[in-house]
Amino acid sequence: MKKGLKITVIGAGSSYTPELIEGLIKRNHELPIGELWLVDIEDGSEKVSIIGDLTHRMLAKNNMSHIEVHVTLDRKPALKDADFVCSQFRAGCLEGRIRDERISLKYGMIGQETNGLGGFANACRTIPIALEICKEMEELCPDAWLLNFTNPSGMVTEAILKHTKVKAVGLCNVPVIMQKGIAQMLNAEEQDFVLQVAGLNHFIWARQILHEGRDKLQDVVEEILSGSDPLVPQNIPPFEWPAELLRNMGMIPCAYLRYYYTSEDIMGQEIEEANGEGTRGEVVKAMEKRLFDIYRNPELNEKPKELEKRGGQYYSEAACELMSSIYNDKRTIMHVNTRNNGAIDGLPDDCAVEVSCMITKAGPVPLNVARFPSDTLCLIQLMKEFESLTVEAAVTGDRNAAHRALILNPLVTTGTILEKALEETIEANLDYMPQFR
Amino acid sequence: MKKGLKITVIGAGSSYTPELIEGLIKRNHELPIGELWLVDIEDGSEKVSIIGDLTHRMLAKNNMSHIEVHVTLDRKPALKDADFVCSQFRAGCLEGRIRDERISLKYGMIGQETNGLGGFANACRTIPIALEICKEMEELCPDAWLLNFTNPSGMVTEAILKHTKVKAVGLCNVPVIMQKGIAQMLNAEEQDFVLQVAGLNHFIWARQILHEGRDKLQDVVEEILSGSDPLVPQNIPPFEWPAELLRNMGMIPCAYLRYYYTSEDIMGQEIEEANGEGTRGEVVKAMEKRLFDIYRNPELNEKPKELEKRGGQYYSEAACELMSSIYNDKRTIMHVNTRNNGAIDGLPDDCAVEVSCMITKAGPVPLNVARFPSDTLCLIQLMKEFESLTVEAAVTGDRNAAHRALILNPLVTTGTILEKALEETIEANLDYMPQFR
Amino acid sequence: MKKGLKITVIGAGSSYTPELIEGLIKRNHELPIGELWLVDIEDGSEKVSIIGDLTHRMLAKNNMSHIEVHVTLDRKPALKDADFVCSQFRAGCLEGRIRDERISLKYGMIGQETNGLGGFANACRTIPIALEICKEMEELCPDAWLLNFTNPSGMVTEAILKHTKVKAVGLCNVPVIMQKGIAQMLNAEEQDFVLQVAGLNHFIWARQILHEGRDKLQDVVEEILSGSDPLVPQNIPPFEWPAELLRNMGMIPCAYLRYYYTSEDIMGQEIEEANGEGTRGEVVKAMEKRLFDIYRNPELNEKPKELEKRGGQYYSEAACELMSSIYNDKRTIMHVNTRNNGAIDGLPDDCAVEVSCMITKAGPVPLNVARFPSDTLCLIQLMKEFESLTVEAAVTGDRNAAHRALILNPLVTTGTILEKALEETIEANLDYMPQFR
Amino acid sequence: MKKGLKITVIGAGSSYTPELIEGLIKRNHELPIGELWLVDIEDGSEKVSIIGDLTHRMLAKNNMSHIEVHVTLDRKPALKDADFVCSQFRAGCLEGRIRDERISLKYGMIGQETNGLGGFANACRTIPIALEICKEMEELCPDAWLLNFTNPSGMVTEAILKHTKVKAVGLCNVPVIMQKGIAQMLNAEEQDFVLQVAGLNHFIWARQILHEGRDKLQDVVEEILSGSDPLVPQNIPPFEWPAELLRNMGMIPCAYLRYYYTSEDIMGQEIEEANGEGTRGEVVKAMEKRLFDIYRNPELNEKPKELEKRGGQYYSEAACELMSSIYNDKRTIMHVNTRNNGAIDGLPDDCAVEVSCMITKAGPVPLNVARFPSDTLCLIQLMKEFESLTVEAAVTGDRNAAHRALILNPLVTTGTILEKALEETIEANLDYMPQFR
Repeated sequence: MKKGLKITVIGAGSSYTPELIEGLIKRNHELPIGELWLVDIEDGSEKVSIIGDLTHRMLAKNNMSHIEVHVTLDRKPALKDADFVCSQFRAGCLEGRIRDERISLKYGMIGQETNGLGGFANACRTIPIALEICKEMEELCPDAWLLNFTNPSGMVTEAILKHTKVKAVGLCNVPVIMQKGIAQMLNAEEQDFVLQVAGLNHFIWARQILHEGRDKLQDVVEEILSGSDPLVPQNIPPFEWPAELLRNMGMIPCAYLRYYYTSEDIMGQEIEEANGEGTRGEVVKAMEKRLFDIYRNPELNEKPKELEKRGGQYYSEAACELMSSIYNDKRTIMHVNTRNNGAIDGLPDDCAVEVSCMITKAGPVPLNVARFPSDTLCLIQLMKEFESLTVEAAVTGDRNAAHRALILNPLVTTGTILEKALEETIEANLDYMPQFR
Repeated sequence: MKKGLKITVIGAGSSYTPELIEGLIKRNHELPIGELWLVDIEDGSEKVSIIGDLTHRMLAKNNMSHIEVHVTLDRKPALKDADFVCSQFRAGCLEGRIRDERISLKYGMIGQETNGLGGFANACRTIPIALEICKEMEELCPDAWLLNFTNPSGMVTEAILKHTKVKAVGLCNVPVIMQKGIAQMLNAEEQDFVLQVAGLNHFIWARQILHEGRDKLQDVVEEILSGSDPLVPQNIPPFEWPAELLRNMGMIPCAYLRYYYTSEDIMGQEIEEANGEGTRGEVVKAMEKRLFDIYRNPELNEKPKELEKRGGQYYSEAACELMSSIYNDKRTIMHVNTRNNGAIDGLPDDCAVEVSCMITKAGPVPLNVARFPSDTLCLIQLMKEFESLTVEAAVTGDRNAAHRALILNPLVTTGTILEKALEETIEANLDYMPQFR
Repeated sequence: MKKGLKITVIGAGSSYTPELIEGLIKRNHELPIGELWLVDIEDGSEKVSIIGDLTHRMLAKNNMSHIEVHVTLDRKPALKDADFVCSQFRAGCLEGRIRDERISLKYGMIGQETNGLGGFANACRTIPIALEICKEMEELCPDAWLLNFTNPSGMVTEAILKHTKVKAVGLCNVPVIMQKGIAQMLNAEEQDFVLQVAGLNHFIWARQILHEGRDKLQDVVEEILSGSDPLVPQNIPPFEWPAELLRNMGMIPCAYLRYYYTSEDIMGQEIEEANGEGTRGEVVKAMEKRLFDIYRNPELNEKPKELEKRGGQYYSEAACELMSSIYNDKRTIMHVNTRNNGAIDGLPDDCAVEVSCMITKAGPVPLNVARFPSDTLCLIQLMKEFESLTVEAAVTGDRNAAHRALILNPLVTTGTILEKALEETIEANLDYMPQFR
Repeated sequence: MKKGLKITVIGAGSSYTPELIEGLIKRNHELPIGELWLVDIEDGSEKVSIIGDLTHRMLAKNNMSHIEVHVTLDRKPALKDADFVCSQFRAGCLEGRIRDERISLKYGMIGQETNGLGGFANACRTIPIALEICKEMEELCPDAWLLNFTNPSGMVTEAILKHTKVKAVGLCNVPVIMQKGIAQMLNAEEQDFVLQVAGLNHFIWARQILHEGRDKLQDVVEEILSGSDPLVPQNIPPFEWPAELLRNMGMIPCAYLRYYYTSEDIMGQEIEEANGEGTRGEVVKAMEKRLFDIYRNPELNEKPKELEKRGGQYYSEAACELMSSIYNDKRTIMHVNTRNNGAIDGLPDDCAVEVSCMITKAGPVPLNVARFPSDTLCLIQLMKEFESLTVEAAVTGDRNAAHRALILNPLVTTGTILEKALEETIEANLDYMPQFR
């Protein structure tokens, strides 16, 4: 007889984990956890062990030491009979991310963890491992929910939904940041308005903001244009939207859409950063080092403030809320990656989309999405084709699918240069992309 | 300064009104009503006066006499600054309904208030009046919500959404009965599961029944096939679905779909009834007479039991819950007629559909509807074409649109007979259908 | 080394065959035939032998006795290396057709060879045999073209296109009659205008009539309304379209659409005929008997005039023209059943549609079809669902698919009566429908 | 009483005109021309006069001096009662084209007459004039056919089809070159195979090549990959397609698609050319000067060989064939820009597409286009959105539409740089783009 929920964290050696632990502690009254399994691979053994110790201290401080904490490199016992599996690993570690950034820049393209050539490379490294984990879940914990916040979250979720039977939900902090930023602009509590977003992971738009009986989207647009924009995550540099474009759009693009609407400016900043403090991956690597030095401190028994400067804030917060919403059938509105199933007209039923959903014990039920304006829909369809072909390439190792995927991506330059960049990407990642051998 | 909500009931002389009053009384703690306006036309003046007196007695019994009750034949003051307008009138009274039934039967077609030739006639009588009321609302209470339960509810709502700016929601008791019946079969409270329905008014299917973390639709199917079927309203005779058809459908058709899946049997029953106790309209007319005799009783100060035998039970219950959900931003899931806007793929954005929605202070937000199986979708599209052409005919008086509408309806027989039946329908209703003159 | 084309006729004992022979004779200069194989089954051995003798006499009269004529009951040598295979058999003979008509009428439904319950029964008898022939063709003459005029031509063609690799084209005389009738109304040669039709077999509309630099469709409509209607085949009784309906349609419905637009009138006629001279099948049976008496005459060496009174005139004419167009890459516009492939928007790519095509040596290339008005499109989609589900039922013997198909058909009455009619149909045809056993 | 056809050429001072004259002379037997009106504007008066003289000499040589030749700067008498109007003007002359190229390159974008920022600028200069001409045609020659080969041909044709009643067909030499190249590869006459192309102007793919009874598309692909590629126009530099991409595509992209599939390589060549012999516009300008020196020669009485080196060969050939096909109801298959009307699924009905059509006296009837693979369809939809928004911007002068259009175009870089490039484009062209003032 289980004493409480069994929660398993894959890639628990991540510097984000303390946020997750904090979130679980906060929800102690509604999420009765019995066991917490912190899993990582050999390369992450030191980190996961530091995290494990910090976790013990955090639980102790909150009088929650009854929760069993297991730190392990062996996935199978960790997955056995789990209720929730949180996936937050990074295939190829930060070195892989930095490599993606540098290769992209070398070929004159934007280099980023989830977009363009870098997003493609990340997907090809990550998806085979994600599917392997899911195959194990099908056997060891077929009823468990998988909360995926491993990037690129949208494509990883799509691969899982298409190729396994696991009940998976993809998470991202971008809509959470929008939600919180809009609350601030409306001077309202988060539960007092309904934000509806729709699109693909890192490619979403706010479609409506229902507050006090009407849609305040256009008010928020004016607020953004007036200068205050709390919708931008830490890892995206500040910028201004072209005012008329935004005002006439009838939607609010997420911060990541800057990569597409203003790619030259992003490119400029990336080159500057790469030549200065380092690429985002390099900055994060240094930051991680500092964080783990802090985590090591045996006096520390709470999430340190410094973690909030890391780009992914709220990721784990969202994961905890999602677990609670499912467990308690809360019917909260959350913004997650799930099977499209008609939610966004013009996309295939079986692809993953990031949309606002009512969260039930049986999983997310998407809200209906009004038709996108045709120019925006074209962009979404194009990106989804890129994503679906990337998933295909990641699963099969078909270079032609890879080439077709990349040709479509607006952040990728086509021509001989692309053929070279693709070959270098595969070559440099071959240990993580055996499918292309 | 308003002392509370102003609620206006159009067609308040209906025998259903006591249920509505009861529903408002029950929600006294969450719906702070200041004024209640009961409106009817000259022909209904006696009835509305009886209802008014009963309302006074019911409020008094519940210590709610602070609510101003106005009984009037003058719509304009009643609409002025209303917060909620409940529309439940019947154009042409029960006589019109009976006439529809008798003309349909005369020409060998199924005769019913919302389906086939009868539904067409009812729409053509009702829509011009509904639009007239809405034009007044645009001026006198532009922010009010219109709760339409005037039949045919789907077509009336579509006409209002297409031709006016009024914030209208169409209601029907069919999904409410499904909700309650399923609760009974699941042995669960209504709020403990999520029922999702989709389709058109009187033409819906349950698509999923989320309970205890999974979809129990197929369990409910087996329960229905095993004999117990509490999903059928009082005014639909009991029957059995073809077992294999239902079992393989992956959806549960509402009771009204019997008109389409088993039309010959319905036809047989209608003929039998017409030759026996009378058509449904005739039965209802007798029932109404009895009910008003009861209402007249100065001792009566609550909704009498006898009302529950009337077909439309829960209509007013749904209306009260909807008012409260809007007023309190409750985010309840209710099943209402609203603008499609992509909810059902394959139907126009601007048509009305009956779908499960999250009710907010800003109105209904439909849940996403998974694609219908293609054969069912064809039927829905056909019926929607019938409805939209009927709305067009009702608004413009275009006989060709009327003819095109009726040709599509599976309950209508085509040929010379249809031309005759259409002419007789228009002729007999000319006072209510001046647009066809 | 082949001396000329090898043409194989399946069901050559049909009374239509002399028309086919005449057509081949007329095209002697462009269709160099070496061998003509006339195939039938045991039950048709006497008829095919009579046809064989008449064929010899017709060829002799035209100095074409160099063509080898083979009469056989053995299909395989007949198919071996054939260039063109004409399929014109009737599964279950005229007795099957008459049985369909009588069962339909018994249950109060329209009974017809290609529509409603009769069309369903005919498809279920015919498709298994058609597929068997095609399997043989895949092996014995993989490059041959199959010209299918076996009814129901649309569904049979769809079954072949979906389940075999045979290059099949479905033919019907309905559009041919329209073409000839319109020529007469325009007082023009057939090649002087472009008629474009679209829809499903026996369910088509003329969409444009390009003549002398403009679309004369509306002129032809007025001509039809003025009384002259040469568009109606011999086996459809004369009638009048509702004038305003036709005038506003922007299309000209084929004569068979009368079954749907004016079903009550057709029903009346069918009952009258069944009680009088007999059903259409019974009339045809008598006519066939008379025709074969004529064919037997050893003096006869040409197609007798009497054949023209038979309903299917021009069927064989169309087949001959199609063979010549393919053989000579003529690029004629013909109206045939072929894979949709996007021709009619809103129908699946892989279904069969009847559309105007440019005929090349590589087969038919459909002309683009402008979007249908939405009400008409709904009807076409509904009928296509009926057809595709019928094909599925015919191939698999799945009763549930059969039931779902029939529920959709506007000529079929639903309810207990349908369950009975379906069972009787299957029972009565069990020898020809082993798949339902 | 007209003595023959009246043909009017707008922009007759173009260096291409002698090819057009040659084409008309060749078709003397089937195109009975009475009058030829050569129209240009003040700036082109010298050139059109040279062309007029050469035309007289060419006609005289061929004993066709009975044709009246009018050289004029006054459009109205030239349009009056015209039968065919050929539009081949260049708004802003070659100077405008060169300006487009130089501005694009300055901002690091591909600069080209019909693609990217240059195509946008060209459309905005040209469309207002094209619409002005069409307004005159509506009045002066409402039955005339407009053959538009003014670039950007697709967008100009779309603007005309959307905003005027003129019967317009857009022409391009790209598919003509494909047709001729494929003939060469197949070693066949052009009329011996059916090439079907589909897409947008300068954005088409060959979809099938029906020859000798089968589709030889894949054979042609292998021929192209083996080195011989006669499908490339003179003004596109030679290149190689990525072999696997082409082999798996199932279609053959036109040469202009190189701009999208291999944009970096094109960019490199453009920079090299701009720094060397000059941009394409500059090269053409020098070439034009040489051509007119040749045309001036009073001995010259035929189209000089040198013209063939100019990029647009076969443009006028196609125009002459199109006139003859319309006039003679020839039903030739030609590849033209026309109203989509469902030909390409997934594009709006009212946009212009470039598809293979059967040419009748009533104009082009498109062949059905099989569904595009979804990744290619996304690109086509994106480009069509760009085109339609560009047409909107060109008609209304709406900067926001312009911005939205350009953001979508894969050859355009987004960001602050785009805002600057757009402003400079409008500023530099303000005389030709008064709509943006």
